[in-house]
Amino acid sequence: MSHARFITLEGLDGAGKSTHLTFIRQWLQQQDIEAVFTREPGGTPLGEKLREILLDIDTEATLDTETLLMFASRQELISTVIRPQLAAGHWVVSDRFTDATFAYQGGGRGVPAERIAVLEHWVQQGLQPDLTILLDVPLEVARERMSGTRLPDRFEQEREDFHQRVRQMYLARAQANPQRFLVLDANQPLEALQQRIAAALAALKAA
Amino acid sequence: MSHARFITLEGLDGAGKSTHLTFIRQWLQQQDIEAVFTREPGGTPLGEKLREILLDIDTEATLDTETLLMFASRQELISTVIRPQLAAGHWVVSDRFTDATFAYQGGGRGVPAERIAVLEHWVQQGLQPDLTILLDVPLEVARERMSGTRLPDRFEQEREDFHQRVRQMYLARAQANPQRFLVLDANQPLEALQQRIAAALAALKAA
Repeated sequence: MSHARFITLEGLDGAGKSTHLTFIRQWLQQQDIEAVFTREPGGTPLGEKLREILLDIDTEATLDTETLLMFASRQELISTVIRPQLAAGHWVVSDRFTDATFAYQGGGRGVPAERIAVLEHWVQQGLQPDLTILLDVPLEVARERMSGTRLPDRFEQEREDFHQRVRQMYLARAQANPQRFLVLDANQPLEALQQRIAAALAALKAA
Repeated sequence: MSHARFITLEGLDGAGKSTHLTFIRQWLQQQDIEAVFTREPGGTPLGEKLREILLDIDTEATLDTETLLMFASRQELISTVIRPQLAAGHWVVSDRFTDATFAYQGGGRGVPAERIAVLEHWVQQGLQPDLTILLDVPLEVARERMSGTRLPDRFEQEREDFHQRVRQMYLARAQANPQRFLVLDANQPLEALQQRIAAALAALKAA
């Protein structure tokens, strides 16, 4: 009897993913649930090499190539981390997953969703998160939180309308997949957000 | 009126691709045909980075990931070199292309041809070589020619049955696509081979 669950966190940079990942980690520890935490792109030795290429401000890659590299990193993560860990009964929590590709490469840059869906099917072969927590935040707030923390990477330096389209696509994905999405207004007080996340995790554990 | 043509060379390492590439280059120069030469994986700045990762003997990548990286490199080559050069009316000659993925990742390592075909369609969207020259050579001959030239890369160090399966898949691809394949027994004298290649190029030019 396996209680393995697959959870993903999504949202713009500055939406507060790191803070909530820490909270999720503590909650799982308190419940004695074995879990692994990973991130995309990256999460494997090969994936981290690809992450470096993808986020490098000097990288020249066409949009289609960028999309394929995102899925190559994802394939390696699924094959060597996510599926084996789930098979061992552990929970897996990923900082971003395929919804981010629909949001950034699709909504932000214009790759047709049908083309992304072909690769999603190729790579995931039916695997989907049990729970996706979307931290939704107005652009001004995300920007305010990010300002001064570090130099922007290749995605962060995009213009405002890019991030607006990313946010809208995230919200559209959530609307299309209500059974697995928990959309949180990241502007709420931290404690209120943590209560809702804890409730969702508890429900997932009991399911 | 464009006379652009897209030619690919395929075959095991040691089949003599380099020698024949030199001959093709000279033939095109003599005909005053503008041409670009490229290779796979690689042929673009990003593609060469991926080539380094793919051929590195220390790289750990699952078969599916390797296949996606091959197509990422190919996507970049098609978008930034092959299509623009063909559009400019130039000939493009590539040292390996998608038939190599069917042969190495498919025949050699066992990725189902249907899965490779999905990515082929995603990346090429109908683009196919006008001519594919397959240099076919028995394994012993290829091995003899390669011995002592340099340290083997991640593909060359595979076992003999691997290379046997690669060769068989190349031949099966040629049989399934006779309209674009020229299969040459690379054991023939060089002059005989060059005559056949020159004839194929002349026919392509006149077509």
